[in-house]
Amino acid sequence: MNERLKKQLDFALEIDKEKNIFRQTHLTGHGRNENDAEHAWHMALMAYILKEYANEPVDVAKVMLMCLLHDVVEIDAGDTYAYDAEGLKTQKEREDKAKERIFSLLPDDQKEELIALFDEFEAYETPEAKFAHTMDNLQPLILNDSNDGADWREHQVTAQQVYGRQSKTGLGSEYLYNEVTDKLLQKHIRKGNLLSDGKV
Amino acid sequence: MNERLKKQLDFALEIDKEKNIFRQTHLTGHGRNENDAEHAWHMALMAYILKEYANEPVDVAKVMLMCLLHDVVEIDAGDTYAYDAEGLKTQKEREDKAKERIFSLLPDDQKEELIALFDEFEAYETPEAKFAHTMDNLQPLILNDSNDGADWREHQVTAQQVYGRQSKTGLGSEYLYNEVTDKLLQKHIRKGNLLSDGKV
Repeated sequence: MNERLKKQLDFALEIDKEKNIFRQTHLTGHGRNENDAEHAWHMALMAYILKEYANEPVDVAKVMLMCLLHDVVEIDAGDTYAYDAEGLKTQKEREDKAKERIFSLLPDDQKEELIALFDEFEAYETPEAKFAHTMDNLQPLILNDSNDGADWREHQVTAQQVYGRQSKTGLGSEYLYNEVTDKLLQKHIRKGNLLSDGKV
Repeated sequence: MNERLKKQLDFALEIDKEKNIFRQTHLTGHGRNENDAEHAWHMALMAYILKEYANEPVDVAKVMLMCLLHDVVEIDAGDTYAYDAEGLKTQKEREDKAKERIFSLLPDDQKEELIALFDEFEAYETPEAKFAHTMDNLQPLILNDSNDGADWREHQVTAQQVYGRQSKTGLGSEYLYNEVTDKLLQKHIRKGNLLSDGKV
């Protein structure tokens, strides 16, 4: 087998490990935690279905690819919970190392292309990156809402923390932030599923 | 919330159930069976990485979307193992009913669009459908190869059955069929992981 194809298949096999990286979010109507591959699949399909709400026109194929790829680094770096202050301090360093190792399995041209896409997502500047992040924030929110906010209750997350985490959701879609994110959070504050810290 | 957005979110929540549909394939280096959402995610990324090997030029965004969507009907219809002769007889009827129910959650224009895409995949005629099927066949093959053919051994699958199942893999990519599919199957026949039925 030629070297290029061998490298591509090595990468394809390596990313299988993303199915073993579990998140704090739970599946709807089910006790199990979600893993990164499932989360990425769900985000990519949501991006396609909801693309009309992006603030700016987006290349939806690029958004979908960003969604599919954005957690590959967690194969090495693990999932860092959005409200884990200690973990967040070392997250970038851990993920940078992982990015270099995992994408280096590919032929050089594809390594460069996918790292550029990954970095574009992380930089949060282009319309595609912003909208992919909106999906990254919205997808666990609708799951958690369907489970009556159980993930927040379990971790005693405050309303201020969630609003902080969701502060950039509107950069990709003001409409989804106002109609979904904000309304759901207000509902869960009223229901007592999100603690009030006196500041929200 | 407006009716259109509500429908889109209902669909987004419904497809979460695909994460609970388990396949016969096992993850690499791990005992657990793979689920449909993970399989779809893996296929979509493989389609992007391996697109240069498609027999004909493909719109890779369309291929990826087909990959992500192609098993949604199994939420109702369940996974039909490729070598389950009885299950295969009723598969189409079960999946047609599921298709109507699940895509009807969407606004009409998106229902029509995604059913058309789903049907295009099933019809196996366009370059995108053929290449998406190549990924559907190749993805479990590389996982099973990484597990030394354990899924075939467990189900006592014969070489002829697998060659039958893989008979259209080359329609999407002759190159991948010759360089990966055929070479891996020959290896597993030699190793005794695929039974010989005297016809291959």
